[in-house]
Amino acid sequence: MTGWLTRICSKPSRMIIGLMSGTSADEVDACLCEISGFGPDTRARVVHLASVDYPSHVRHLLTHKIGSLDVEEVARLNFLIARVFAQATLKCIEEADYDKSDMDLIASHGQTLAHFPDTDRESLPVRATLQVGDISVIAQLTGIVTVGDFRPADMAQGGQGAPLVPFADYILFRDASLGRIVQNIGGIANLTYLPPGCTPEDVIAFDTGPGNMVVDAVVDMLTQGKQTMDTDGKLAFSGTVNRLFLDHLMSNEYFAKLPPKSTGREAFGQQYTAEILDEYKHFLGTSGESWDPVPYLEDIAATVSELTVQSIISSYKSWVLPKGPIDEVILGGGGARNAYFVTRLKQELSKLNPCTKVLTHQDFGISDKAKEALAFAILGNQFIGGMANNIPSATGAARPVVMGKLALPW
Amino acid sequence: MTGWLTRICSKPSRMIIGLMSGTSADEVDACLCEISGFGPDTRARVVHLASVDYPSHVRHLLTHKIGSLDVEEVARLNFLIARVFAQATLKCIEEADYDKSDMDLIASHGQTLAHFPDTDRESLPVRATLQVGDISVIAQLTGIVTVGDFRPADMAQGGQGAPLVPFADYILFRDASLGRIVQNIGGIANLTYLPPGCTPEDVIAFDTGPGNMVVDAVVDMLTQGKQTMDTDGKLAFSGTVNRLFLDHLMSNEYFAKLPPKSTGREAFGQQYTAEILDEYKHFLGTSGESWDPVPYLEDIAATVSELTVQSIISSYKSWVLPKGPIDEVILGGGGARNAYFVTRLKQELSKLNPCTKVLTHQDFGISDKAKEALAFAILGNQFIGGMANNIPSATGAARPVVMGKLALPW
Repeated sequence: MTGWLTRICSKPSRMIIGLMSGTSADEVDACLCEISGFGPDTRARVVHLASVDYPSHVRHLLTHKIGSLDVEEVARLNFLIARVFAQATLKCIEEADYDKSDMDLIASHGQTLAHFPDTDRESLPVRATLQVGDISVIAQLTGIVTVGDFRPADMAQGGQGAPLVPFADYILFRDASLGRIVQNIGGIANLTYLPPGCTPEDVIAFDTGPGNMVVDAVVDMLTQGKQTMDTDGKLAFSGTVNRLFLDHLMSNEYFAKLPPKSTGREAFGQQYTAEILDEYKHFLGTSGESWDPVPYLEDIAATVSELTVQSIISSYKSWVLPKGPIDEVILGGGGARNAYFVTRLKQELSKLNPCTKVLTHQDFGISDKAKEALAFAILGNQFIGGMANNIPSATGAARPVVMGKLALPW
Repeated sequence: MTGWLTRICSKPSRMIIGLMSGTSADEVDACLCEISGFGPDTRARVVHLASVDYPSHVRHLLTHKIGSLDVEEVARLNFLIARVFAQATLKCIEEADYDKSDMDLIASHGQTLAHFPDTDRESLPVRATLQVGDISVIAQLTGIVTVGDFRPADMAQGGQGAPLVPFADYILFRDASLGRIVQNIGGIANLTYLPPGCTPEDVIAFDTGPGNMVVDAVVDMLTQGKQTMDTDGKLAFSGTVNRLFLDHLMSNEYFAKLPPKSTGREAFGQQYTAEILDEYKHFLGTSGESWDPVPYLEDIAATVSELTVQSIISSYKSWVLPKGPIDEVILGGGGARNAYFVTRLKQELSKLNPCTKVLTHQDFGISDKAKEALAFAILGNQFIGGMANNIPSATGAARPVVMGKLALPW
């Protein structure tokens, strides 16, 4: 039984199921991919994507109780979530009209229960991350060799265990002669810059700042939950940007910080939004106690949407252009469907370089929804080939490492 | 980088470090073993054993807070404990005068934080177990391929994820013509029965009942902590067994239960001991409110020590002898150093079969302290060979499985 590894690795192409569930914890995505080669020779294509919802009580624990889970809940969730991951795998295989025996590998991100890239717990001064969805359980329930739990190895070498997707960006999007930015606009916006003819060492990746997070929160607060997002950027388009206020928002210290850097809900979430709504009145010259921001919804939406655009463009100017050309920007994430973001980014990019093309993941045959699960399929393919799959310049790790753990289904 | 598995597996013998830490959580044992072959052809010998203490605050969390750990503590302990496991590994290699590069594999049990073989948490109806000491961290810090986290795969196939040592007993102690019992007497006593010429399917393994646990608790309570155990069985030897009371204790329903079965502190711990101390007066014909058991220390110690002996012998009669001969009994655990247990077991065994020999692990070149770490080295050797390493008749799993997960050090 020791020939299995050679057998998988020597195939001209491998059928790999990537499994992903994000922090929103609404569903598990299973992406069947066909992958050939390893390292720079890797080629990947998406065959099929399927999703399975979490049972409601599991979702409730993951969204409302995640910080206060006890050790028993952690232990049981590890097994229960593995079952949902196995279920998503089997659904994906069936929908794509394949058989379990056609599969070579599962590569699972797991579900994040905790991520502490800092050593700030006094009694336990060690950085840590915790992804559950036990890979032994997934392997046993599916009958497929399973790789997963990628983050700890990078952290053991001094990295943050994140971001991991830039390695897949390197595999999927680097070009011999073009400089490309893969620009994801989710709640937070992040980029991967791939200079022309780059090696993994040349890759730059970091969070640029807020994506949809602030504009969504503004809309949600000022409509009292009637709207939860600025669909297609309609509100932003109909408002006027307050330049003074925008300059104030751009003075946030995060934007001047040297990459690699990452941010999140703690910096640009509900509390941040509530604070800037309160501050906005001063920039209108208003000082009354009973000031009502609701009539200014469109202007505020325009201003915070422009914050996303400007923080992205400013990142390009400060940290990307000094390193190489930006020939193409490949947009992804929910924000790539916000027409305000796309239009304004195109306008600003044309000022930087009139020849820069703006594309989407879809232009490369990859749906936004499949992207992350595909990324983990690529990381799993590297593991099985015994090859490094982190980007030290993005995570801060001391060196390239083979992230992941493997479980056998026999 | 795909040749590593073939290279490890094709060596005439492998240098494997087994890592173990029990529920007492006082230290981590690292046992360097030389192992050749796989499955029934496995040969193993202990080269060196080293131990490393847990930092006191970690030990405190593991012994006093283990049931109430929160998700952050679980995440951080997973990384911190891995460092101690890595430290024990490096200490063992250095003391044995080897180099890291001589090592083929680490096989780690990890530290158990939770074990729930029943589905009794209503909101999360799934069996679960949780061992920490991240194997990616161990692999990265030592530079050695690491296998660990064995229990989940067995549980995924309906097993209890325990006991795991019987597989190693099968490898180390089975004989073509002799029927052997490997009798461990720890806090709880458990046996592995290996019929002559057995296959893994023939192995019987279960907990026979209390080992040292009850007599230790009696001594601790009645001396108010001045003594914590009956050293060499001296108290038991100087007391008189109360036959009526012993019969009452032997009527405990656990002893009549069909194996596979397991028990623990919840059944034979402090509460059980307090109850039987209270009951003892009735068997003396005493009924006063202010009855003092202290003068009866020796008699009670003799009676509960005899409970251990009788429950072991009764298990042999009920569940072992109907399956095959008992030619040798190989004693292990702390109880193997209690002269009362050893003397009385020999007397009782000679009534069952005057030819039965009583031996110790040491007679096979295995120290008691090295045994469990050696057992996990053997399980890791099986994993690397892609071969099953559970005993379904002992764990209750639906089938033999390859337990464990693997992390690479590159």
